Amino acid sequence: MPTNRQILLDNRPDGEATTSNFKLVTTDTPALQDGQVLVRHHYLSLDPYMRGRMNESKSYAQPQPLGEVMIGGTVGEVVESRHPKFKPGDQVVGMGGWQEYSVVDGNAPGLLRKVDTTHVPLSYYLGAVGMPGVTAWYGLTQIIAAKEGDTVVVSAATGAVGSAYAALAKARGCRAVGIAGGPAKCKYAVEELGFDACIDYREHPDVKTMAKALKEACPNGIDGYFENVGGYILDAVLLRTNAFARVAVCGMIAGYDGAPLPLQNPALILVNRLKIEGFIVSEHMELWPQALQELGTLVAQGKLKPRETIAQGIESAPEAFLGLLKGKNFGKQLVELI
Amino acid sequence: MPTNRQILLDNRPDGEATTSNFKLVTTDTPALQDGQVLVRHHYLSLDPYMRGRMNESKSYAQPQPLGEVMIGGTVGEVVESRHPKFKPGDQVVGMGGWQEYSVVDGNAPGLLRKVDTTHVPLSYYLGAVGMPGVTAWYGLTQIIAAKEGDTVVVSAATGAVGSAYAALAKARGCRAVGIAGGPAKCKYAVEELGFDACIDYREHPDVKTMAKALKEACPNGIDGYFENVGGYILDAVLLRTNAFARVAVCGMIAGYDGAPLPLQNPALILVNRLKIEGFIVSEHMELWPQALQELGTLVAQGKLKPRETIAQGIESAPEAFLGLLKGKNFGKQLVELI
Repeated sequence: MPTNRQILLDNRPDGEATTSNFKLVTTDTPALQDGQVLVRHHYLSLDPYMRGRMNESKSYAQPQPLGEVMIGGTVGEVVESRHPKFKPGDQVVGMGGWQEYSVVDGNAPGLLRKVDTTHVPLSYYLGAVGMPGVTAWYGLTQIIAAKEGDTVVVSAATGAVGSAYAALAKARGCRAVGIAGGPAKCKYAVEELGFDACIDYREHPDVKTMAKALKEACPNGIDGYFENVGGYILDAVLLRTNAFARVAVCGMIAGYDGAPLPLQNPALILVNRLKIEGFIVSEHMELWPQALQELGTLVAQGKLKPRETIAQGIESAPEAFLGLLKGKNFGKQLVELI
Repeated sequence: MPTNRQILLDNRPDGEATTSNFKLVTTDTPALQDGQVLVRHHYLSLDPYMRGRMNESKSYAQPQPLGEVMIGGTVGEVVESRHPKFKPGDQVVGMGGWQEYSVVDGNAPGLLRKVDTTHVPLSYYLGAVGMPGVTAWYGLTQIIAAKEGDTVVVSAATGAVGSAYAALAKARGCRAVGIAGGPAKCKYAVEELGFDACIDYREHPDVKTMAKALKEACPNGIDGYFENVGGYILDAVLLRTNAFARVAVCGMIAGYDGAPLPLQNPALILVNRLKIEGFIVSEHMELWPQALQELGTLVAQGKLKPRETIAQGIESAPEAFLGLLKGKNFGKQLVELI
């Protein structure tokens, strides 16, 4: 059996996460039992939600156990199978974790899904046509309920979620406005992703200047906001919401390190009759087929051209992950493992 | 024509509202023109929303203009009519303002509504079977969407909204938990209004002790919360919410004076997948008939027995209003004008 390199969570962060929270180990992949499948991972997905799992504290999900392989989405190829549904060469998406190989129970529903790479590159099943894409779809269609003419805003605009959000919003006749860090990302958001405008938060580092920038970018106010970040950007967005605006809360990166991150003016919820709703996309699996179909079509039509930042080798995953949390990636952050 | 005593907004509060913001004047009621109705007010309703109107700042409603009669709901009797639909002796509910008489355009839809006092006392049309009752109904049924077995909490539990909330929640098979100030109010909430438990916020003046009290009063967690207050009580409630809990935001009294009132931990919106929604009941007039019918029936059946605090004479309105903002009232705050 092949040798497998794995990244474990070794200890929990005290404040900011560091590479010393992780540990690289080498093991042998075990011999397969009946019904099991051995998958060689081509790509590992790195996502902000993983930071939440590193904490001990109560969250919507179980904390990542210490001494175990870090959780994570993967795409790869079946290299050995003792399950009739899978054969070597099948391309699959799953939750293989931060490692080069995984052994999967082929009978467990939803653990391993075969994908078609005729029109959609394999890695996209971790991004635009995967969990992040469905996340954008759910927030925009189920919570924001975007309709033609709405102005809809998203933070972390050039990430995997933001990229899909722009394409989905434009397909619905919305004005799509992004928020991203730095002129290169903002240029890319408008020129490649189709945003009507993009605000550089580094140029607007406080509520007042951000609210002013939002006023210029959203002359008709804000009808929907997809929250990936939290903190002062949310405060500024709320100041510009129209009556009956909807806010989909998907991530609050800025708060994962444990620093308090209050919402400064919740009275705006009443004043503007806002709806603010949190969600976790994995709790709405019944909607994934519909979402994935639309996202796959947008990719095939060239209307969704996501960018990827690809780190090489499993050993680079911790550093790449910490960079993601600081916004150093440009587009979907992946680790290539082959 | 009779002499009319009126309370005007004389100047805007700088921080806390005071009696010096108001001014009592005496005028003559004008002669009626065709289509007009003269109403003698029996009761004036005092409500927290009025504090918001006293500010200059942008809100969901126009600010109360300076030098004009304060806005307010009234019930009374038609004393003179030049409109075929109304005749002297009709009992009516309207928005007559802080004054003893009002002249109303009988043709304007919704301005004046005749009511039946066979089973429901006239003053109740300002409370349990009026705007506050419908407010409770809307929050509980349209936003919280309370269902049997849910634990639903309300702040300002013995006020007009809270009283109706308890009866409506019990009618739906919920566990109803109130939050009120002082042992007398809490005793009344449980013994008279039907709450299953009531927490005295004076005994629990911070997030930590309030969260502990909520844990005891809500052993199965909180599924719905009706927000009348804001501040640390909301923070504590959010800590005890179950997954997919709903928060109806109707008032944030603590914030009206302009003091910042941040929400300490908005990340809970994501962690517990909460829905938080603000509303103004006057924007949902299409649902009032349905709500008023249920509320009137609960009163007639003796299942909703609201308490009233009644100040005497229009000149007492400013003092009574400031007391309401400080929670000095016990049940619906009215001013009797006859």
